[in-house]
Amino acid sequence: MKEIKLKPGERIDQLFSHQIKIIQANDVFSFSLDAVLLAHFANPLRKKSGKIVDLCAGNGAVSLFLTPKTNAHITAVELQPRLAEMAERSVALNNLEEQISVVCHDVTDIFAIIKKDSIDTVCVNPPYFAVSEHSQKNPNQHLALARHEIALTLPQVLSAMSGLLKQNARGYMVHRPERLDEILALAQQNRLAAKKMWFIHPKVGKEANIVLIEFIKDGKAGGVKVLSPLFVYGDDNEYSPQVKAILGLN
Amino acid sequence: MKEIKLKPGERIDQLFSHQIKIIQANDVFSFSLDAVLLAHFANPLRKKSGKIVDLCAGNGAVSLFLTPKTNAHITAVELQPRLAEMAERSVALNNLEEQISVVCHDVTDIFAIIKKDSIDTVCVNPPYFAVSEHSQKNPNQHLALARHEIALTLPQVLSAMSGLLKQNARGYMVHRPERLDEILALAQQNRLAAKKMWFIHPKVGKEANIVLIEFIKDGKAGGVKVLSPLFVYGDDNEYSPQVKAILGLN
Repeated sequence: MKEIKLKPGERIDQLFSHQIKIIQANDVFSFSLDAVLLAHFANPLRKKSGKIVDLCAGNGAVSLFLTPKTNAHITAVELQPRLAEMAERSVALNNLEEQISVVCHDVTDIFAIIKKDSIDTVCVNPPYFAVSEHSQKNPNQHLALARHEIALTLPQVLSAMSGLLKQNARGYMVHRPERLDEILALAQQNRLAAKKMWFIHPKVGKEANIVLIEFIKDGKAGGVKVLSPLFVYGDDNEYSPQVKAILGLN
Repeated sequence: MKEIKLKPGERIDQLFSHQIKIIQANDVFSFSLDAVLLAHFANPLRKKSGKIVDLCAGNGAVSLFLTPKTNAHITAVELQPRLAEMAERSVALNNLEEQISVVCHDVTDIFAIIKKDSIDTVCVNPPYFAVSEHSQKNPNQHLALARHEIALTLPQVLSAMSGLLKQNARGYMVHRPERLDEILALAQQNRLAAKKMWFIHPKVGKEANIVLIEFIKDGKAGGVKVLSPLFVYGDDNEYSPQVKAILGLN
């Protein structure tokens, strides 16, 4: 096995279904179910000549989890050097250096490094929380940047996704249902037509706390499909069979 | 019992949970589950001095089904004289003439008869299908007008809802999930913030085919709640317990 050095507080986690190893650290960034669901939901171009971009890549979870589904090249874009460097080591740990390039770059300036209208599939797990004067932000700067719209806002995310995608190519986003109204209004302004939505509820009877959306650039409005929802936990507070299957825990 | 005359093809149906009688005719208009769900989902102002408007009222189903929940006055607005007249007879059949006024009027000209910014609750079950040159329309003109955006388009519906509502008052709409992107983009343009969404799926594992949305006029964006979904049929192809409860079939 290749020797990959871990820094203090880091550990290696494994996603069973994918046999993917990933370096995590609670005080910096750990992937959550959102990343697993985004990679599961996405239908990336599969062929080797394809180009995928994973925006707000964090520790590289989405890019890594996409690899069993596609031979296309994946560029993982992450603003924070500490996270980008973690992602890079995870890529090496999985011997995926040929398929995944990690780039430490600001998404608001993405067209300085990636050509417009050149990408087949874009995935993004952006910061979820709008920032206001009064909003409570995580005192940990790594987590604050990943969770709050400090360095990247929702309009900027959708503008980057749309700008990167070729015509009729697909973008995938995971976000909070609370912001669905803003997301769909901004998508329309950015030539992105919502095609599929998948709502994730913690349990039967509870409101959704995650939404996944498939967009098509320059697609036709009025064609949204709302998939049968996913319930994460059963009444026994264990993962539901659907989630176990996605996580490869069966 | 009051004598209400039925025309050829008409029948009287009853919604058990509400003890509401309603005149129906398959070749003119029959209420569907959508109307029952809209009245169930709506949280109308309850007090007697309140004002409710039911747009695209059809044979009056939504207005009639709202009455067990509110003492407010309801104006049911329907374009088609044949339907408005049916609704009027159903109102009489239920002795609800004091609470419900049926008005035969065009929603696009609604402010000729109802003052702007004067209504506490608006409900609407509009035509669902966009009209294009090639779209198949129902050859029955009554049904075509009720189902297709021939006389009333989605932008006109949202503009009427918003114009009627007082500030911070609530509007309720039932529609097809396919058009959710258009609905939310238009809502934002019409000062309507989506607050609650409820997706209805025919069965577990099937895509949603109905969506209900609560709007607040001049509400804040980014506060959407997606309720736990409703599944209409169980695996046995019978109504699910939730739907039976709503229909009062238990």
